[in-house]
Amino acid sequence: MSDAATVQRFVRLAEVYRRGLLEDGLPFWLEHGLDREYGGLMTCLDRDGSILDTDKGIWQQGRFAWIAGHLYNAVEKRPEWLDAAESTLRFLQAHGFDQDGRMFFQVTRDGRPVRKRRYAFSEAFAAMAFGEHARATGSPASKSMAERLFRAFAGHAPSPPKFTDVRPMKSMAAPMIRIAVAQSLRGSIDFAAAGEEIDRAIAEIRRDFMKPAIGCCMENVGPAGELVDGFDGRLLNPGHAIEGAWFMMREGEIRGLPEYIRAGCDVLDWMWERGWDREYGGVLYFRDLDGKPSAEYWHDMKFWWPQNETIIASLLAYRLTGDAKYAAMHAQVHDYAYGLFPDPDYGEWFGYFHRDGRLSTPLKGNLYKGCFHVPRQALEGWRIAGEIAAGRIGTPRP
Amino acid sequence: MSDAATVQRFVRLAEVYRRGLLEDGLPFWLEHGLDREYGGLMTCLDRDGSILDTDKGIWQQGRFAWIAGHLYNAVEKRPEWLDAAESTLRFLQAHGFDQDGRMFFQVTRDGRPVRKRRYAFSEAFAAMAFGEHARATGSPASKSMAERLFRAFAGHAPSPPKFTDVRPMKSMAAPMIRIAVAQSLRGSIDFAAAGEEIDRAIAEIRRDFMKPAIGCCMENVGPAGELVDGFDGRLLNPGHAIEGAWFMMREGEIRGLPEYIRAGCDVLDWMWERGWDREYGGVLYFRDLDGKPSAEYWHDMKFWWPQNETIIASLLAYRLTGDAKYAAMHAQVHDYAYGLFPDPDYGEWFGYFHRDGRLSTPLKGNLYKGCFHVPRQALEGWRIAGEIAAGRIGTPRP
Repeated sequence: MSDAATVQRFVRLAEVYRRGLLEDGLPFWLEHGLDREYGGLMTCLDRDGSILDTDKGIWQQGRFAWIAGHLYNAVEKRPEWLDAAESTLRFLQAHGFDQDGRMFFQVTRDGRPVRKRRYAFSEAFAAMAFGEHARATGSPASKSMAERLFRAFAGHAPSPPKFTDVRPMKSMAAPMIRIAVAQSLRGSIDFAAAGEEIDRAIAEIRRDFMKPAIGCCMENVGPAGELVDGFDGRLLNPGHAIEGAWFMMREGEIRGLPEYIRAGCDVLDWMWERGWDREYGGVLYFRDLDGKPSAEYWHDMKFWWPQNETIIASLLAYRLTGDAKYAAMHAQVHDYAYGLFPDPDYGEWFGYFHRDGRLSTPLKGNLYKGCFHVPRQALEGWRIAGEIAAGRIGTPRP
Repeated sequence: MSDAATVQRFVRLAEVYRRGLLEDGLPFWLEHGLDREYGGLMTCLDRDGSILDTDKGIWQQGRFAWIAGHLYNAVEKRPEWLDAAESTLRFLQAHGFDQDGRMFFQVTRDGRPVRKRRYAFSEAFAAMAFGEHARATGSPASKSMAERLFRAFAGHAPSPPKFTDVRPMKSMAAPMIRIAVAQSLRGSIDFAAAGEEIDRAIAEIRRDFMKPAIGCCMENVGPAGELVDGFDGRLLNPGHAIEGAWFMMREGEIRGLPEYIRAGCDVLDWMWERGWDREYGGVLYFRDLDGKPSAEYWHDMKFWWPQNETIIASLLAYRLTGDAKYAAMHAQVHDYAYGLFPDPDYGEWFGYFHRDGRLSTPLKGNLYKGCFHVPRQALEGWRIAGEIAAGRIGTPRP
């Protein structure tokens, strides 16, 4: 894979991703979403960027402040990126926290709390955001806030619990997001516990969620990794598993641990097999372990983010292994996603298509779709495609 | 409308509904769902009736015990119907209640609690079921249980609340279901407070949810009926509103109150206009008040129950008013639904189609789809079509 045509292909890809990030996605959100009156980001936007709802999701505040701060640190010191991150962090500090120190899920435009959830993902994304701010500014307050929020997230037990302890189950989400947050904080604030936290999370995924005998990464298992028969136990979320796959590959890359790269590739292989739609293309949302009907009627939709995560995972797998099957996989999901999701008229990606490629809702954001998966994929893709174009294939990053 | 062809049409319709109830829907659930080991009904069934998940939803236990008991009381004294109702009520009494007297939402097959929710709809459906049992057997314990559960439902405030009180909103679900439960208990146990409860609920719907100026029945409003701008405030649920419409018409029919019939017809007119899919047919799931994009990506699916409720509402509106537009409306939704939802191979209805009529998931039941909307529609349709065939159009029931 050193012929000129292939190099040219990845040079072009890197440029597609760079422009998608810097000339399309980020400008869309900065222009339409940034709240110059109250601070932070409004994400409930229609196709053309007009506002559908002014409420602010706290996840999306943290995610946006993270990507803006990370771009400032990793790409270019543009003051408007740091300003956007700081506006959002000020909003979070003023309005994101309940009196018990836990974070809300949804607040009004001016910051009055609407909803708090049992889970602590608001804390996870905010931790990443404060970490980038500490790196950008050297602020010790942001650094200690990032560490405190990581602890709040990692040590959190939902209260009140949603389920009784009659059939205890655990979700892949917890260890998976712990990897991502710890990796982010290692990069931004040199978080001392990162390696240990990540090793524990990957060990849990490999021990309890990955099932080599059946070629599957589970979404929900019993406390000791038991398969649980029933709708929840059989439920597979291929995009989610594949997101975890590239977190593991990245860790293997950074620390030179081939077994982490192999674990990530295994999960990608298995969940591509189970999640890719051979009829219409794209990664399906939910699958059943045994091919039985899903209890979720929207199981066969095509959401934006599983495509984003699969683009990153397949591209990274190709860079790290040099295996041509991952280049083919990447081309397949890239061509599918870039042929369907970007809005040629108003920019940014649509979020929700039916299985056959018919658009479900044309909005660009809500409390769940904000400025996160699309720009993160563009940034990762830009970086990885550039490395491949430079000939760094099948080797650890220098 | 007294020509022989039309009479013949409604005679045939009554027969379609009768057979759907007695020879298709009910036998499917009795054969495949009834749990002869632990009692009650399993509803998580695949297309052919095989079991996908053994957990029992408490809503579905109450709904099934209600329809079985109601058929015993209103149609025929078949012992197997009373047995099924009693098996389910015994299961509910043994396993449906938490120590605080409130009911669970989901339990294991043998009755160990899995999940409890903040809401009290489990109590509402169980009240109806115990009422029918009291009528069938004269049991004073079932009668007082029905009354206690109605009070628990009607007086319930979700705890802990899902939302803060920063933007208080209320849903059409509460008064709408209050009408249905009170009507049911009036029929079964001569519930003394029924009329007053129903009048209050209809007054609330007319005052706070019905908006004649814009021709709409809202799903969520502020505490005094204020329109709230934003995703939740603009959200319309046409099937839900139309279900409430026929509850109001029925009350007008029973008590000879033309204004209740008019209110029901208004809601039906408005929500048919907003909810009927002119391209593919069927009642859509969600609509936005201003035609803006829905935040719910499955907004345009075709679920079974909105079709059931619209079949009843349009047929009842025709019987009560004699207005030919309702006969046409009924023919349209009946032909759509009966052409798509019944499973010709294994019986019962499918539940979940995409907008264009493509099947999403072939299952026959889960925690939300059980033995309720389809048989209730068949029973109501059988009764009303028979009345129309007998020439009782535009007149109160004798």
